[in-house]
Amino acid sequence: MQLTDIRPRLLLGPGPSPVSPSILEALARPTLGHLDPQFLELMDDVADGLRLAFGTDNTMTFPVSGTGSAAMEASLVNVIEPGDTVIVASNGVFGGRLAEMSRRMGAEVVLVEAEWGRILDPDAVIDALRAHPGARALAIVLAETSTGVQQPLAEIGAAVAATDTLLVVDAVTAIGGTPVAVDGNHIDVCYAGTQKCLGVPPGLAPITFSEKAMDRIRSRTVPCASWYLDVSLLAGYLGSERKYHHTAPINMVYALHQGLSELRAEGLEARFERHARAGDRLKAGLVDRGFTLFAQEGHRLPQLTSALLPEGVDEGPLRRRLLDEYGIEVGGGLGAAKGKLWRIGLMGHGACDENVDRLLAAVDDLFGSAVA
Amino acid sequence: MQLTDIRPRLLLGPGPSPVSPSILEALARPTLGHLDPQFLELMDDVADGLRLAFGTDNTMTFPVSGTGSAAMEASLVNVIEPGDTVIVASNGVFGGRLAEMSRRMGAEVVLVEAEWGRILDPDAVIDALRAHPGARALAIVLAETSTGVQQPLAEIGAAVAATDTLLVVDAVTAIGGTPVAVDGNHIDVCYAGTQKCLGVPPGLAPITFSEKAMDRIRSRTVPCASWYLDVSLLAGYLGSERKYHHTAPINMVYALHQGLSELRAEGLEARFERHARAGDRLKAGLVDRGFTLFAQEGHRLPQLTSALLPEGVDEGPLRRRLLDEYGIEVGGGLGAAKGKLWRIGLMGHGACDENVDRLLAAVDDLFGSAVA
Repeated sequence: MQLTDIRPRLLLGPGPSPVSPSILEALARPTLGHLDPQFLELMDDVADGLRLAFGTDNTMTFPVSGTGSAAMEASLVNVIEPGDTVIVASNGVFGGRLAEMSRRMGAEVVLVEAEWGRILDPDAVIDALRAHPGARALAIVLAETSTGVQQPLAEIGAAVAATDTLLVVDAVTAIGGTPVAVDGNHIDVCYAGTQKCLGVPPGLAPITFSEKAMDRIRSRTVPCASWYLDVSLLAGYLGSERKYHHTAPINMVYALHQGLSELRAEGLEARFERHARAGDRLKAGLVDRGFTLFAQEGHRLPQLTSALLPEGVDEGPLRRRLLDEYGIEVGGGLGAAKGKLWRIGLMGHGACDENVDRLLAAVDDLFGSAVA
Repeated sequence: MQLTDIRPRLLLGPGPSPVSPSILEALARPTLGHLDPQFLELMDDVADGLRLAFGTDNTMTFPVSGTGSAAMEASLVNVIEPGDTVIVASNGVFGGRLAEMSRRMGAEVVLVEAEWGRILDPDAVIDALRAHPGARALAIVLAETSTGVQQPLAEIGAAVAATDTLLVVDAVTAIGGTPVAVDGNHIDVCYAGTQKCLGVPPGLAPITFSEKAMDRIRSRTVPCASWYLDVSLLAGYLGSERKYHHTAPINMVYALHQGLSELRAEGLEARFERHARAGDRLKAGLVDRGFTLFAQEGHRLPQLTSALLPEGVDEGPLRRRLLDEYGIEVGGGLGAAKGKLWRIGLMGHGACDENVDRLLAAVDDLFGSAVA
């Protein structure tokens, strides 16, 4: 296949999201070396932009050289030592992944579960924390991409802050679309992705560590099992020493730099409002068309809507036609939700009325012909 | 700093190498989803191109979603289980990194060392293999980027092939510039980088696994410690099942696709010759100017030349002036070689007479003024 043959899509799935022309243009700027003073300055700008997006003053804030799951792994592998107890609160695919990764690192995992599509009851999570006072970390997903649920964190964060346990939060789908408030929520390790509400292609994964987390890392008794993701080594490159660790994905950093400049220009609050408006418009349109919203009322993400299809509709072929005939990508269900629901993202550059209307018009066409 | 303010550099360091306009253009193509049939077709093309570049028929050949060190980690973490013996042959920074990573994974490391700048004596490596018949893996660097040494692999490969041990080879700086011959050298796990002789920006790291390696992975008794890099999970995405694992760095895959198309169009042999010619021209020019070639004669990489500076020259300030005044990046020494040598890369798009001449002319200017 030739690259020039690529048919562009309107990306309304769970990510990647549509990338603006200005960010694609940034990607194509001339490659610099990873120790070039110009590049190091760009990396410092990116760290500042990420602090704004995360809502934190943490010094140790940077993009991991990988995609969201690499940062999930980085967030766990730096703080966990074999034999540690880790509480994982799970109500979807990404909570399950946090548990699986923790086990592979040798942690004893205490699982607190909720039904997919529902939030984790903060009291149940806090009970688990009280029952395991020596737990090294409590890991939870803020924006569960597999179900569209937004988890309330304030009570949990306050409870964890009063202990020696570290709060690890997945904000992959949240960042840039809904508040993360790392400092406000007392989050110790928070990771994200570029390819959702930041509107940047996949390939980097923002992460931030609180001082409490860095203290824990400095007092490890065995080295971090991953050399590539070891934040104590990365600190040598990101700090004033500028010591070579690994070669950063230079051009991807350009794209993130541009994405963060655009976020700063728009303003966080205005961006959250834009995502909220588009999400509301979509949800109303889907309900009008016989879809059933899957996520618990009052805890629905604006940027990622999960919706069960009308009774009797075979979603796979329709989703394929939406892609092939209308050039629109939406996501299917994962795990237990496979074949039952669509996951529709209105993220970053894609969060606008026009995209909602284009999707709903295509759905009308398709469902008309599916019924006929 | 603004991206539009970036002053382009001529990248003649140890990587990243200069990226051609056509590859930068490929980077900026519209982002697709990672499950889009168009993207999956591009991934299949990339696997084919990587088989050509690696010199292998291995099915399990793909780009890791990270940079070279991520693929180094992937190559070890998939085959090592805690308590395994791993023989690491080391004569530079990257051999040392292989040992460090293996230890962090719980391996007992048997180190075979040679002086920096010299090859590892194949007989010494084979002796270690005979002394540790149960070793899980033998890891060695084909093109040591810290010293410019090219390691002969034929005898070592034949010896390892007769055992149950797996041969793990670092070809980060080799691929696309000098032969790797994965199948010919009986290499079981080989990893590389995109930002050297493939001429693609950093952000992906090609890797390939032999059937012998995959059999070993299938018979593991504990899961791979890294979820992100677990090739048994990645196989579900790369194979016919197309099961979601993680979001690939889509636009970086476009760039690699383009880079591999250009490699195919040029032809591997012609490309190796181009690198050899440029390397010879540079080495002759440096010797003429009082530099001393650092790597062992007969085992010098064409694409990466390490050279000790003329007596009495303080390399740091000159290297900085080369960057600031002439816009040319070269690398300094790493580890014990810090402050003593330059590492000059003529890789990928950068391997041409014109770049050699531009660098030598700048050196003449600088050294003239340094003396004056």
